[in-house]
Amino acid sequence: MKSLGIGLIGTGFMGKCHALAYGSVKAVFGDVPAPRLEVLCDVPADKAAGFADQFGFARSTSDWRELIADPKVDIVCITTPNKVHKDMALAALAAGKHVHLEKPMALTLEDARTMRSLADKSLGKTIVGYNYLHNPAIAHARGLIAEGAIGRIVHFRGMVDEDYQADPDLTWTWRATRADAGLGTLGDLGCHLVSLAAALVGPVESLVAETRTVHATRPVGEGSGEHRPVENEDIASALLTFENGVHGVISTSRSAWGRKSYIAFEVHGTEGMITFDQERMNELRLYQNRGPMAEQGFKTLLSGPEHPPYGHFVPAPGHQLGFNDLKVIEVHEFLRAICEDRPAVPSFREALHFEAVIHAIAEAAAEEKRVFLK
Amino acid sequence: MKSLGIGLIGTGFMGKCHALAYGSVKAVFGDVPAPRLEVLCDVPADKAAGFADQFGFARSTSDWRELIADPKVDIVCITTPNKVHKDMALAALAAGKHVHLEKPMALTLEDARTMRSLADKSLGKTIVGYNYLHNPAIAHARGLIAEGAIGRIVHFRGMVDEDYQADPDLTWTWRATRADAGLGTLGDLGCHLVSLAAALVGPVESLVAETRTVHATRPVGEGSGEHRPVENEDIASALLTFENGVHGVISTSRSAWGRKSYIAFEVHGTEGMITFDQERMNELRLYQNRGPMAEQGFKTLLSGPEHPPYGHFVPAPGHQLGFNDLKVIEVHEFLRAICEDRPAVPSFREALHFEAVIHAIAEAAAEEKRVFLK
Amino acid sequence: MKSLGIGLIGTGFMGKCHALAYGSVKAVFGDVPAPRLEVLCDVPADKAAGFADQFGFARSTSDWRELIADPKVDIVCITTPNKVHKDMALAALAAGKHVHLEKPMALTLEDARTMRSLADKSLGKTIVGYNYLHNPAIAHARGLIAEGAIGRIVHFRGMVDEDYQADPDLTWTWRATRADAGLGTLGDLGCHLVSLAAALVGPVESLVAETRTVHATRPVGEGSGEHRPVENEDIASALLTFENGVHGVISTSRSAWGRKSYIAFEVHGTEGMITFDQERMNELRLYQNRGPMAEQGFKTLLSGPEHPPYGHFVPAPGHQLGFNDLKVIEVHEFLRAICEDRPAVPSFREALHFEAVIHAIAEAAAEEKRVFLK
Amino acid sequence: MKSLGIGLIGTGFMGKCHALAYGSVKAVFGDVPAPRLEVLCDVPADKAAGFADQFGFARSTSDWRELIADPKVDIVCITTPNKVHKDMALAALAAGKHVHLEKPMALTLEDARTMRSLADKSLGKTIVGYNYLHNPAIAHARGLIAEGAIGRIVHFRGMVDEDYQADPDLTWTWRATRADAGLGTLGDLGCHLVSLAAALVGPVESLVAETRTVHATRPVGEGSGEHRPVENEDIASALLTFENGVHGVISTSRSAWGRKSYIAFEVHGTEGMITFDQERMNELRLYQNRGPMAEQGFKTLLSGPEHPPYGHFVPAPGHQLGFNDLKVIEVHEFLRAICEDRPAVPSFREALHFEAVIHAIAEAAAEEKRVFLK
Repeated sequence: MKSLGIGLIGTGFMGKCHALAYGSVKAVFGDVPAPRLEVLCDVPADKAAGFADQFGFARSTSDWRELIADPKVDIVCITTPNKVHKDMALAALAAGKHVHLEKPMALTLEDARTMRSLADKSLGKTIVGYNYLHNPAIAHARGLIAEGAIGRIVHFRGMVDEDYQADPDLTWTWRATRADAGLGTLGDLGCHLVSLAAALVGPVESLVAETRTVHATRPVGEGSGEHRPVENEDIASALLTFENGVHGVISTSRSAWGRKSYIAFEVHGTEGMITFDQERMNELRLYQNRGPMAEQGFKTLLSGPEHPPYGHFVPAPGHQLGFNDLKVIEVHEFLRAICEDRPAVPSFREALHFEAVIHAIAEAAAEEKRVFLK
Repeated sequence: MKSLGIGLIGTGFMGKCHALAYGSVKAVFGDVPAPRLEVLCDVPADKAAGFADQFGFARSTSDWRELIADPKVDIVCITTPNKVHKDMALAALAAGKHVHLEKPMALTLEDARTMRSLADKSLGKTIVGYNYLHNPAIAHARGLIAEGAIGRIVHFRGMVDEDYQADPDLTWTWRATRADAGLGTLGDLGCHLVSLAAALVGPVESLVAETRTVHATRPVGEGSGEHRPVENEDIASALLTFENGVHGVISTSRSAWGRKSYIAFEVHGTEGMITFDQERMNELRLYQNRGPMAEQGFKTLLSGPEHPPYGHFVPAPGHQLGFNDLKVIEVHEFLRAICEDRPAVPSFREALHFEAVIHAIAEAAAEEKRVFLK
Repeated sequence: MKSLGIGLIGTGFMGKCHALAYGSVKAVFGDVPAPRLEVLCDVPADKAAGFADQFGFARSTSDWRELIADPKVDIVCITTPNKVHKDMALAALAAGKHVHLEKPMALTLEDARTMRSLADKSLGKTIVGYNYLHNPAIAHARGLIAEGAIGRIVHFRGMVDEDYQADPDLTWTWRATRADAGLGTLGDLGCHLVSLAAALVGPVESLVAETRTVHATRPVGEGSGEHRPVENEDIASALLTFENGVHGVISTSRSAWGRKSYIAFEVHGTEGMITFDQERMNELRLYQNRGPMAEQGFKTLLSGPEHPPYGHFVPAPGHQLGFNDLKVIEVHEFLRAICEDRPAVPSFREALHFEAVIHAIAEAAAEEKRVFLK
Repeated sequence: MKSLGIGLIGTGFMGKCHALAYGSVKAVFGDVPAPRLEVLCDVPADKAAGFADQFGFARSTSDWRELIADPKVDIVCITTPNKVHKDMALAALAAGKHVHLEKPMALTLEDARTMRSLADKSLGKTIVGYNYLHNPAIAHARGLIAEGAIGRIVHFRGMVDEDYQADPDLTWTWRATRADAGLGTLGDLGCHLVSLAAALVGPVESLVAETRTVHATRPVGEGSGEHRPVENEDIASALLTFENGVHGVISTSRSAWGRKSYIAFEVHGTEGMITFDQERMNELRLYQNRGPMAEQGFKTLLSGPEHPPYGHFVPAPGHQLGFNDLKVIEVHEFLRAICEDRPAVPSFREALHFEAVIHAIAEAAAEEKRVFLK
């Protein structure tokens, strides 16, 4: 397998995360060629140059089309605001590049569908940054479910919360607009939870839902006295029916004081239960109806080498992976998929379903009706 | 205040709990006359006699109408299977007695309404066994909310689970029938959660819901090969709109492996959050957006004398109340209400709302529509 | 078995706890005659009369010798300040009564030895209020250890803390004196931990130790400006060698902010570990080196009917026992022992060892040497 | 500041950790030149070559002296078995290199002293791999203590456990020998805890201690029947007196089933308490005697950007750092110290104290006496 050249667009939260992941994936896993960090793009140009130096990229540009056109770039990483995902991804695919896109794919479901259609016809592989899927604890949960450790799945509950929009006095930003941000908490947080639900239980068939905007308006700036409306939801909840008949409940809030990275779920089975919370991302809780009742209880499984690929990071159990490590696993999956000429997971195909669900939630809430995914 | 005579119908889980509570309420609180344990009723007669001896009742009978007619009985405690609640409560009220009824009030909402109507016209006071409401931690949560400690309430989430119907091999019982048990997990568990939601957030206005029966049939007896249908729900979930506009999500299961007495909720406010789990009933978790962000976090408040009426049980904090102690507080509330000639809380009036909600959930699920509580 | 008459001396924290326990033990367990609450003693006389009424005692007195002499009193419960334990217990034993004594037995080890000697020669049974021993979770831990669930025991660690002496501004009381209180945190809290260590691991052979007085003096009263010395320890720690060779570490503080009833321990075995914390007294944590490593983890066992005698209180698991319930179990043990004419556990015999250990800790710390228990 | 060349000796657990950290420190922090990964050393040569490729080193060698002599190597990272630390470190210092040494410094205290002496006279900077010190949660704990958030420190308790030597059937290795491994759990784990204790409370003045070897012998190989003695301790505990008079208790075991990376401590102050457990390394628990007692409780602080340098890894709170991130912070400290020409922390100077304490524990246990650190 030849080394692949990376072009990274964006240098914020996720941009840095991508840079770190592509920079260390070879050292961590060993079974992929070290990616070449070729071009970094941001605006203005000097910001791009500064981050190229910091992140170890060979060149920089303030023109993302130039980055895509660069013949040394094989993989285009898109970590820009959601609004521009679509144009960049379509251009990269059209140029025959592999696309590593941060979630959500696009502001609207229609755009996401367009992107998937083009991906289906393209030579380039795609992967979307549903990084929580790559947690060894989640992989272990999936394995346990697959082997019947908790019997037949009968119920799913999930919550995903943060508090970055909880403060009533926070000023108004583009995040509050349909035009620039699209959905609210559903797009930022909800889709992550859906990705986990789908991975653990299966695709969603239909749903009913409600949403709420906690803060109807926000001040434009300090002292101006002006307020602008918040156009998207702060809170959303839905009752899900999965294709396999399982009933689920999910809820998300970006205004939940005290929740910093709360992605919690329960999978109920006929023989046991699995629970998880991302704020303790190295722990999986498992209850099995096995052995004497007096010794039954929820067991806390602390991630370790027995939960691949944890051991590639640390050979000793319980030592803790971190948030950035999940992106390294995601990058590894993408590089292996390219190397083996198979679809990466989750590609635009799977991601489209996750995002169809959040748009269905918004629609079900707005129109007060049951929405079917197909 | 004169001492009140107690007639207890039923000697099971809740019957014993009532006996213990009436037996110790005077010693615990001191401000009520010691109730006189007059008559205990169960069938057959010798069982009643045996339990009267154990629980310290003066007499026993196998005829509940005789108990109600007994002039020395002032309070009739009804802890029998749900199916007979209505007849007993109506008879007791008609006889001018105070009624301490276990939840749910009745199998159907219509019956519950009839009971409330009679109660409204009766001299006797009523209270329904929503014992979790009496937890000092819950009382403290209500106080915190009332004083604005977490700002304006914007969201509620709650779950209530047990696993007594989780085992697929469990044999069929009357619990599985509409005729004898009425609702399933909603009647057993769900109504407790609703009582807490209403106490913390307010009355419910409308809802949509889904229910599931996990095990469609159950074996009638070992080796018979016969199976009978399970007619009521194992799992139920609902999206609630409270009268004050707050959006809520609740879910309940009686088939949730590992959950033994799980009644968990989150109250989201504009300035903080409160969470609770009955399996750790002496802990309340509080997050407040106060002080430097570096020192913000969920605080675990361990129940103590600062959380009345904890101190009546133990003068030292953190020493732990138990399940049976909640009933003592409930009994105290009932005796004080009688003594002060005021309605007890929750009387048939409040309980009717809790139960209207669970029936609305069943209806919304069955008919796939939004149900309004009024 | 005939009904036994109870004489209770003291009406504080533990006095009330005894009254509640003797009042409900028959209803809870059924297999013992209901104790007769005969005489309650406190000073002054009207206080005794008031509490006799509240607690349901037939008579009251301000003279404890009169209570002991009462022919209707079979069991003398001593819940007075430690200083007077000895005289009361010796008098009660001399009068042929059974003695239910709160811990610690006495201010000095010499006194405790005298008390045990007399008890050995007396007809009356004895029990000392090491109530935490009676927790079903602890009983289950002992059972697990006995059946080899965690292999051979190799290490013990324990801590017991509260914060009732943490505040630097707290005023000086008799608790600070050797003459009236004897030991400090060792007598109040440390001996409870020793009782658990001995029950789980076995008797202690020798130890080295250190103690500290956090607040050397305390103000006598507000505004007086006067301070008096604190004569006993706020903190104590010891390295233990048990008779079976196991190495242990224990530590206690009465000045540990945030600890309300913290009695935490770990028992390390060659095949697993058990941990516990009294602030979550219905949970036992168990790790066993069994099954695939990927599914090993600490399991939280929530107390239930499978952990006797939990089921006598509540037939459903996870519903939570409370602090006062432990005293009911202790009283039941005492009544059964009297009924079966066998020693109760822990009698003065076992309690003497617990208290010998705390005095050895004080001695080892004061003299900076290893102290042997025999 | 010029870029520094790295020579890494060792490719195991810590070798990989170093490679990842030097590889990403520039991208994470931005304020240091990217280190040049020059030479990697391991035996045999082809293993070294393979890891050089994986970890991104320019060259490889099987001769560590060659690595040290390489003029392009500025920093020598020593991650080899403890036995060879001394010779490598002395040689590197003698060659004028900076030394990044994994803990413990050496097998014996005498060797560690020799190393510190040479370091004092050398131009090269030193740092020892006490990585847990660099956790933002620990830094925050130190800050809280320094600003008096919990008042005057009065007590310290700590435990550090793993279970890699818990299995009785584990075969004998060099780890069991004094000659090759030196101390047992004290050298592997205990010194980490001491580093935290010293950072939080201050230097240790004297101590008494006990140690135990749980498994006296271990089988040499499967089926051979031969057993060899375990020469060093599995468990060790000590009562510490810090130079400032604070009393402490510490305990460590490498045979503690269920403990995977358990480094737990409590710091007791006159106004509050701080607790921590490395198995939940992103959480710090803080109790403060502030505000109304009814709202006092332990607060869980989840690491975030308010706890530097967390924000360099992830700009959002609660997203979790991992074990490998701590080494990045350590490397950053080392590079900044070199850049600013100041001692790094912890240098050989501070590390010598940590290691003097663990050797003192071994000595105090062996000779059954109090050992003073000076």
